[in-house]
Order: sequence, then C-alpha cells, then structure tokens
Amino acid sequence: MKLVRFGDPGQESPGLLDAEGRMRDLSGVLPDINGAALAPSSLARLRGLDPHSLPIVPAGTRLGPPLAGIGKIVCIGLNYADHAREASLPIPQEPIVFMKAQTAICGPHDAIVLPPGSEKTDWELELVIAIGTTARRVAVGDALGHVAGYMTGLDMSERYWQLERGGQWTKGKSFDTFAPIGPWLATADEVGKPGELPMRLAVNGDRMQDSNTANMIFNPAQIISYVSGLMTLQPGDLIFTGTPAGVGMGMTPQRYLRAGERIDAGIAGLGEQQHTIVAD
Amino acid sequence: MKLVRFGDPGQESPGLLDAEGRMRDLSGVLPDINGAALAPSSLARLRGLDPHSLPIVPAGTRLGPPLAGIGKIVCIGLNYADHAREASLPIPQEPIVFMKAQTAICGPHDAIVLPPGSEKTDWELELVIAIGTTARRVAVGDALGHVAGYMTGLDMSERYWQLERGGQWTKGKSFDTFAPIGPWLATADEVGKPGELPMRLAVNGDRMQDSNTANMIFNPAQIISYVSGLMTLQPGDLIFTGTPAGVGMGMTPQRYLRAGERIDAGIAGLGEQQHTIVAD
Repeated sequence: MKLVRFGDPGQESPGLLDAEGRMRDLSGVLPDINGAALAPSSLARLRGLDPHSLPIVPAGTRLGPPLAGIGKIVCIGLNYADHAREASLPIPQEPIVFMKAQTAICGPHDAIVLPPGSEKTDWELELVIAIGTTARRVAVGDALGHVAGYMTGLDMSERYWQLERGGQWTKGKSFDTFAPIGPWLATADEVGKPGELPMRLAVNGDRMQDSNTANMIFNPAQIISYVSGLMTLQPGDLIFTGTPAGVGMGMTPQRYLRAGERIDAGIAGLGEQQHTIVAD
Repeated sequence: MKLVRFGDPGQESPGLLDAEGRMRDLSGVLPDINGAALAPSSLARLRGLDPHSLPIVPAGTRLGPPLAGIGKIVCIGLNYADHAREASLPIPQEPIVFMKAQTAICGPHDAIVLPPGSEKTDWELELVIAIGTTARRVAVGDALGHVAGYMTGLDMSERYWQLERGGQWTKGKSFDTFAPIGPWLATADEVGKPGELPMRLAVNGDRMQDSNTANMIFNPAQIISYVSGLMTLQPGDLIFTGTPAGVGMGMTPQRYLRAGERIDAGIAGLGEQQHTIVAD
C-alpha cells in the first residue's frame, strides 16, 4: 500500500493511492496515518479494503507528510562511503547517530524555507524508515520485522549552523521545513528490498545525487538493530538513513541553495519530491 | 500550582498538590497533563478550581513523570562554567544544543537502568523548562512568557557511549530511564525567578553537585530565545538547561554509577527525586 495524507497544512486527512495512482480518502476508516495506524493489525485492516470503494480525492489536492504523530526522528550520519569522503570525514566504524526536531517535518511538495541569512543550506536525499512496532535491542535478523514502511526524505542541513556554531549537528538540521517526507509511505511489503533502491536528486534540473541504497555502509536492518540498542523505537518513529555523495558541501567550489531554486528528488518506488527554495 | 501524574507506568492520571502537599485527582477535569493542559487558558481553568473539592489520591501512590505527550527534548550542553572546566572543554560562546529521545523519560522515583555492560553511567542534575505556548524566534525579553513551568530533571549520560563511540552526544543520552523528571511540574508563577534556584545532588548520601541556577552561562530566557531561532518550540516540549560541576566524569579518579547505588537530587521549589540504580 501507498499511504498518504492530504489537505491543508496541519489539517491533513488520511488516504491511500489506488492501483491507478488516484488518491482515495481513508478518513471514514481511521482518524489519521500515525503510529497506531502503522500497527500490523491496522495495516492488515487497510489491506482488506477495496480502494475503489473509497471516495476519490480531487487531483491537485495538496499532499502533506504521509505520517503524523511522529515521536522522534533519529538520523544516521555519513552512511555512504562516498559522502564521508566528500565531507573529508573518516568512514564510520559504527553508525553515527543524531536527532532532528520533528517540527522540521513538511510535505513532499512544500516550499523549503531558508533560515534568515542562510548561506550554506544544503540537500541530503535519504531513505526514511517508519517504525511500525516497538523495537528494543532487536537482532539484525529481526529488525526489518519492526518496519511499517519507507519514504523518500530530505535531511536538509544548514552547514554553517551544523558545523561552525559550536558542537552537535542538531543545530543545523532542525529548522522548520528541513525534514520533508513523502509523497507516500510505502508499506514494507510493497518495497521488497529497501537496500536495493536507486535514488536521485537534482537542483534546477541538474543531477546532483545519483546513487542506490545498496551503497549504504550500514543497511536498514543493521541501523534499526543498532539504534534499538540505544533507545526504544516506537510506532511512528522515523529513521533517516544517511545520504550518498553529491551534496553541495562536497563540491569544489561548495554550492548551496538560494531562494528561487528547485529540488527534485526521489527514490525508486517511493515517489518524487519537488520543492521550491524560498527566503524566510 | 504543582502538577503531577500518578499511577502505574504508562497509565498515569493527572493530579495536583494541594496546599498541604496532598495529591488530588484531576482525572475528572482533564484527560492528562500534556501540552494542551499547559495552555494558558487550561492553566487558568485549573487555578480556578478549589483543590479541596478534588478526590484525594492515596499517599504512597507512584508518581510518574509530571508531563505526557512530550514532543521533543532539547538539551543545552556545558551551560555552567565549572562543569565545562571539569569536563576539560572550552566555555561555550553560545549554547550547545543536542537532543535526547523522549522515550528516555521516567518518573521521579523510578529505578534508573544501567545499559548492558555500562561502566560510565553518570549523573547530571538540571533545571527543566516545560514550554506552554508555541515559540518561534522569540526575543529574550519575551521568552519566559512561553514557559508553562519548571521541573527537576536528570540528564543521565553514559560517557562511553556519549564520547567514545563515534560522534554526537545523543548516543549516550537516550537510553530508557535516562531522563527522569519531576516529582512535580511547578507552574511559572509558582517558581518566580528560575535563575535563582539552589540545586543539589547526592550519591549514596554524599553530596556531589551543590550549585544554583544563577551559575548558568546562558539563563533560561536566553536559552529559549536561542533555541526558538533554530526550531519551533511547541507546548509540551522540554528544555534541559545543563548541569553544574560535580559529575562523576569530572572527578579524579572518575566515579561512575553501579547497581545498588542511590541518587537523591532536587531543586528548590521543584521537589526531590530519589532513584535506585539497577542493572538491566
């Protein structure tokens, strides 16, 4: 299934995409796509519906972030060897873990807002894992059983605030609109192998990132197992799994986003995002 | 007012302390002490109640964390000059910001669980700010107007995971039970000046931390203003404001927690925590 949320910001309704790619309204079935909606029993119930029995949502309706009630956003740093090299940082021996404020979440086609005075806002295309069942110290072999689904996501990063303003990356990662997710949450059964997905990002139509989740240093199962040893993962938590090479910080000269520019980004099977960069 | 939550873990009910310090049951008045309960209109409504009209909660009932539905936990690092010195780290020129998983929250008298194999679990007594109204880029002079109240909190820290396992402090700060808060949430009017509160922590009865929130490098208003420039603070978000000198890492030799030890900690007007350290 491809789950979506549609409507005005902060007032989205739950929905899904039918086989023809049309949005169908789930608001008569469940209150929202949130952690509770991702429980196996809830997903089984949704799978039992005939999508064609659900009201059609008018084409052109805004898509919001496909998940609400996100408890925490855990991010993995430097999880692609080519990105670690372009950042002039060593290849990690184990996952680097940081957190991003969940208030940074926005929809897949929303404007991304530059922080005031920002001169180093950068893109990072990432596979995002949505947790479906509580995971605490789970083995690698059991880890994917805790996944509800996957999404395209951007871990937007203001490098000046991330790296030049005193310690800890969270500072440059948590501005509002710095965590667009969607367009849809593809349930795990729909995705198959999350570690074999082509991913691409372009700025103003110029290809910047062109990689595959197969290039991760730590794969999704290893990441979930590792993080679940540090904290309890709950339904509706997200894990951003790191970005491949091709970010603006890694270029010579470095190249950052300006108001009016456009990002197009997508992961195979998980849909495409389009964002306009705007000044605050 | 002093707001509490009481009952079994995960099933707490809302309450408050009356003038005699007895717990009174608020579950007939509102569903829980959460972000919505901290809105000014909600707090005004609670203030209008006669506590003696509310059912008494039996003495000895477990106290849970006094706030539910916590959106995010933002922490300030090295915010007391004497602690920065004992950690052999420079005095910050601006607040150091990191995040802690909200799944680490536990009650004020709950056991604190050592991570498996932990040899460097340390204490950090901190003043915790609970946000009551949305704060985005607020001026220092307006910042305290967004505070619902204050709590005693511990930013428990596993130093090996925080500092020796690759980047970013979140890793050693987010284990379950590593964020005890309470015993109560004192509303801002009850606290008066949050920057003039004596604070003390003892391990097995030996005084380890003995300071005052007046010793902060960045005071609560400055912290809220600064963080609100990086991310939107929402009702029910928490800010841990940093710890003074006297942590185990700063001692010679370093001194960490072992199963069976006891922590007693409190901040004037915000109540006392007692924790037993247990092995997992």
